[in-house]
Amino acid sequence: MKEFSDLSRLISPKSIALIGASDRPQSVGGRTLENLTKHSQFKGDLYLINPSKSLINEMACLPSVSLITGELDLAIIAVKAEQVLQVLQECADRHTKFAIILTSGFGETGEDGKVVEAKMLEIARSSGMRIYGPNCPGLNNINAQLGMTFSPAWKIDQMPGPIGLATQGGGMGRTILQAMARGIGTGLWCSSGNEVDLEVSDFIHYMATADDIKVIVTNLEGIRNGQRFIEACQHAARHGKPIVALKIGKSEYGIKAAQSHTAAISGTAEVNSAVFKELGVIEVDDIDELIDTAALLARSQPTGKEKLAVFCYSGGTAALAADKIGSAELELAIFNEITQKQLKEQLPDFASIDNPVDTTGIVLTNPEIGYEALKTVALDPDVGAILYPIPFDYGEITNQAAQSAVRLQKEIAKPLVMVWMSDKPGDGFPVLAQSGLVPARSVGNAVKALKNFIEYGKWRSEYKGEWHPLILNTDFNKNNKIRSSSNNLTEYKAKEILKQASISVPKSIVVSDSKSAAQAFTQYGFKKAVMKIVSATITHKSDIGGVRLGISSPEEASKVFDQMIDAVTKNAPSNIIDGVMLEEMLEESFVEVVIGIHKDPVFGHICTVGLGGIAIELFKDVSRRLLPLDASRARKMINETESSKLLSGFRGKPKYDTEAFVQTLVKLSDFISVHPEIHELEINPLAVCLDGKGVVALDAVLNIEVGGNNE
Amino acid sequence: MKEFSDLSRLISPKSIALIGASDRPQSVGGRTLENLTKHSQFKGDLYLINPSKSLINEMACLPSVSLITGELDLAIIAVKAEQVLQVLQECADRHTKFAIILTSGFGETGEDGKVVEAKMLEIARSSGMRIYGPNCPGLNNINAQLGMTFSPAWKIDQMPGPIGLATQGGGMGRTILQAMARGIGTGLWCSSGNEVDLEVSDFIHYMATADDIKVIVTNLEGIRNGQRFIEACQHAARHGKPIVALKIGKSEYGIKAAQSHTAAISGTAEVNSAVFKELGVIEVDDIDELIDTAALLARSQPTGKEKLAVFCYSGGTAALAADKIGSAELELAIFNEITQKQLKEQLPDFASIDNPVDTTGIVLTNPEIGYEALKTVALDPDVGAILYPIPFDYGEITNQAAQSAVRLQKEIAKPLVMVWMSDKPGDGFPVLAQSGLVPARSVGNAVKALKNFIEYGKWRSEYKGEWHPLILNTDFNKNNKIRSSSNNLTEYKAKEILKQASISVPKSIVVSDSKSAAQAFTQYGFKKAVMKIVSATITHKSDIGGVRLGISSPEEASKVFDQMIDAVTKNAPSNIIDGVMLEEMLEESFVEVVIGIHKDPVFGHICTVGLGGIAIELFKDVSRRLLPLDASRARKMINETESSKLLSGFRGKPKYDTEAFVQTLVKLSDFISVHPEIHELEINPLAVCLDGKGVVALDAVLNIEVGGNNE
Repeated sequence: MKEFSDLSRLISPKSIALIGASDRPQSVGGRTLENLTKHSQFKGDLYLINPSKSLINEMACLPSVSLITGELDLAIIAVKAEQVLQVLQECADRHTKFAIILTSGFGETGEDGKVVEAKMLEIARSSGMRIYGPNCPGLNNINAQLGMTFSPAWKIDQMPGPIGLATQGGGMGRTILQAMARGIGTGLWCSSGNEVDLEVSDFIHYMATADDIKVIVTNLEGIRNGQRFIEACQHAARHGKPIVALKIGKSEYGIKAAQSHTAAISGTAEVNSAVFKELGVIEVDDIDELIDTAALLARSQPTGKEKLAVFCYSGGTAALAADKIGSAELELAIFNEITQKQLKEQLPDFASIDNPVDTTGIVLTNPEIGYEALKTVALDPDVGAILYPIPFDYGEITNQAAQSAVRLQKEIAKPLVMVWMSDKPGDGFPVLAQSGLVPARSVGNAVKALKNFIEYGKWRSEYKGEWHPLILNTDFNKNNKIRSSSNNLTEYKAKEILKQASISVPKSIVVSDSKSAAQAFTQYGFKKAVMKIVSATITHKSDIGGVRLGISSPEEASKVFDQMIDAVTKNAPSNIIDGVMLEEMLEESFVEVVIGIHKDPVFGHICTVGLGGIAIELFKDVSRRLLPLDASRARKMINETESSKLLSGFRGKPKYDTEAFVQTLVKLSDFISVHPEIHELEINPLAVCLDGKGVVALDAVLNIEVGGNNE
Repeated sequence: MKEFSDLSRLISPKSIALIGASDRPQSVGGRTLENLTKHSQFKGDLYLINPSKSLINEMACLPSVSLITGELDLAIIAVKAEQVLQVLQECADRHTKFAIILTSGFGETGEDGKVVEAKMLEIARSSGMRIYGPNCPGLNNINAQLGMTFSPAWKIDQMPGPIGLATQGGGMGRTILQAMARGIGTGLWCSSGNEVDLEVSDFIHYMATADDIKVIVTNLEGIRNGQRFIEACQHAARHGKPIVALKIGKSEYGIKAAQSHTAAISGTAEVNSAVFKELGVIEVDDIDELIDTAALLARSQPTGKEKLAVFCYSGGTAALAADKIGSAELELAIFNEITQKQLKEQLPDFASIDNPVDTTGIVLTNPEIGYEALKTVALDPDVGAILYPIPFDYGEITNQAAQSAVRLQKEIAKPLVMVWMSDKPGDGFPVLAQSGLVPARSVGNAVKALKNFIEYGKWRSEYKGEWHPLILNTDFNKNNKIRSSSNNLTEYKAKEILKQASISVPKSIVVSDSKSAAQAFTQYGFKKAVMKIVSATITHKSDIGGVRLGISSPEEASKVFDQMIDAVTKNAPSNIIDGVMLEEMLEESFVEVVIGIHKDPVFGHICTVGLGGIAIELFKDVSRRLLPLDASRARKMINETESSKLLSGFRGKPKYDTEAFVQTLVKLSDFISVHPEIHELEINPLAVCLDGKGVVALDAVLNIEVGGNNE
């Protein structure tokens, strides 16, 4: 994996060469020049490069970047597509640190463009110069007032602030910038277009330690490199910097559209969400949730224990807010006696002084009472955050309410989360926006943001530095790759491999004739046995008569052997049969669970667990984690499934051996870490026996990666 | 149930008496007078009543309403609380049709106030005069420009339109009025406060046939009378008028807050939602969803078959929109060849001409291309509605985009659903708002509205007039109420009653000694039997040794009898034991389902079904319906549960007798209709046998309403 470079000279360069500088105001080079000179505060060296000019807007112009002497931090390339490679090579040759390629017409137009992009990357890798773009709007360092972009909107959407934004496409990035109208500024926007070299992960990594950035926001269509993304997010976690992510690809339509837009692999939503959750990345569903959540995190640090107060002068609105809080499984604070007493004094008799507080309209005629009551609520020790919805614009009255809120927020550290519910901004909305209170647009949005805020606080309070300690079991032989003549292993072989991973499987033997079947039954001392056809090419054994249960004598074993061979030969004639497996039948009480491990194209090995039967098949009640797993994460993932209750003594039923289930996951994780050639492994079912009695893998499917057996 | 009155003389009175008219501009009477005279277009007779004045603002004033001669449609009462009853009586005495009581200080302040309200209702009932209020902001007939309200905001929030709004609290009602800033007007707002007589249902009923109202919107904290609400909604359904409802009470917090606010019974969210769904009432979760949905329904009539097109000039935004559409399980239209060919001609090579359409930024530099491409998409026959998100404000450019959209919407009937995603309104947002396109604030909101719109279209296409045909089984004896010495019946008695409802139960007998147990076993020809203790007071029989399965001989039956009596006497000594039930054990293959019927305090008998075991216990996979049920509704409710798949041949498993399950529900429904004294009935489990083999109720709990056995 490519190391993360220090991007500070890209974000805040001391010297910039604008290649393709132009005096035509509508050209990319002309617009970028205007942004850099007229609408930026750039104090470093700016070189204009254009072979056909010696002066542009009365500034000196050089024919080539190679003529610049001294260090060059950044080249901004705004030449025609066909000239980009040559110019890029010149930049590399003179040891330029970074290049922003604004020009479009590459990967996004088809295969030819992708070939050119591969050459760009080659130049980057061989020189050490890092590339941003191509096909991108540039880089907006708003906090430094430096617009390395051709966008005419640069001069308009320019409010410094604590948000660091990393996007792929440009459109929704600007939507987020324009949240400035609600009082939250984006200080840095990296939108790296086709991401031929630098990608979203690099900017997340940079922002993790950037002092002017408090919250990292990203809008992703695909993640190019899962491992880099994980590293970047961990870097942010180590530095206590929250990441809020909107990831496209929750439905087939979205996956298809995102792929056609950015050509990045979208991955499955379930895997992405599982990875985000584990990394503490706050996943949101829409732009408004993204903004509300980021703005709240920029204003305050959650502990994860915040209980909420609702303050409102409309009883119905207060009830709606309480309802949303309950539905989100958040908690309302319980006011202490002092608070109750003070509210009783401050508010009319028919006000509701419980939480949610309905002040009644008194605060509309007497804003000072509103302020005092709000303060009383805010000072209650059980209150961690206050939700204050303003349901409608009422002219000067709601203006006063907004001003009281602003005044109070200056006095207290707990976040006051305002909602401006009306479509009429009146005078009150701008008061809230201009003071940086970033009013949400609906009660539901505000509660979503609070939920994300508090959940992130919980995650961080449990975060213990690195999130996956790699505990290798040294008994495993690293050099001993799994060998098989086909990618799919037979159940028998798969179980043999499970044994290598120290996972217990039923006693079993493969026999090749009816006589050996009977002998084996006796010799192995079976009481009851299961017989299954052995073939690497048959996947649904029971459908074709290839599975029989409850065989209870040597004679029966012999008879079943012949019947099974007959049935399978008849029902599935073109398969190679390796024999029949005779296996001890588990007769004690157990619960069936399923363990699935597969290699995700973006993130690598992912483990999925759930209870067998309808819990998985109908209700998709599963939990997912990236490998490797330690016992604590394994236990957590099991407990995340609703149906895990059935393991722990549900409604008077016995307890089952969850701990052995946990250990099985850890063993599999360790085993996979030395056998990355395993592409897919499913134990379905794993029998979890009564507490203390362990687990047994009753069936297994193992799939080795192509080429994995030849190394 | 009180009949629905014709409210037209309340909503549009020809004569009004303002009782408590005042020249003090800040008083309730003064403000109402100002609204009626200065800010309304009232052409009828207005009488001012105030015993201490003869002239108010140069208008004649009478001392009492009784002095008015001729018809009086409406008295608006703005006197002090202690004078209200007397004034109200005077109004009733002179045959006033309606009274609006603006005054507060009644039910909302406590028990004393409720006593006064009861007297108000008495006056209403004995005279026939209907009462609106008390403790309400009045009635806003905006389409007629008649403000029968004291609110100073009346003159400001006054945009006529197709929305009819019925609320309980006033606060969020005004939020909805202020959606005028997005281009949708509320033509009528009824906010009937404490609802001492007229309630939300009355206004829904009125609006169902009001010509100026296209969509009924309601914000409910509690439903006072379920049957009236149902009637009102059915009236709206018959007249093809959609109802959009925001109901507080989805969580404990919300239920508590709503109750303390309006004192109406909130009911359970699950029952409310089930009833709404069946009545075609569109349930929404927040004010923004309420407005977006209502505005869309006001603009267009859904068929339920709409497929969507996404049109956008930002690829990322288009992908987000596609993703939301997929997640909402809506369909993207597939463009035909003509559309594709035209888009190819109209848009650049690297545009995405599939659905979602990403026009690329070309439309920003050439708005005419944008308009043409949008028109091409809109004309595709597979497209039922177009979602067009504008991700950011770009000054004149997005203004042009908005104007193109407005221009197109004038030419096509299919709804163009616009999203203004940015917090900056720029010039484009007002263009959309002022043209009545009511831009949504986020892609997610727009897709929610489209989902509601299409779902409502589906519901309406399936709506067949009255929704519950009451099919009474004439075999049931209406006069034969269930008699029992206690409210809880024993399982044996409950099953006897099920037999009356023609539901099969296992062959069984109650025995009172071990000898009879053995004799019964032989006499009834049991192969295997179940034995259960019979006691009306023991609910968890198996926990105390009161259930034994698999008894296979008369000797065993005899022995088990003694053991069971011993165990129960020891474990649950203070219960009255009526004997032991000996019951045939069902040995064939079956699936266990659960049927529960209970009397909801708001809506009456509700039936809940689901599959037994973890489907219900862990995953709450149930479906609910109001009784009575016919076969088609019963079938539908069964099929709504995820786990009903297990009945219909799931993954190679056999098919079970779903039809017998359906018939059981119908029989129970018929039975309950003649036995309304049944308060709760649970069959858990009902064994659904293989297809054609029927069902058997294996266990039953029956609870009769207090007093039900004495009638």
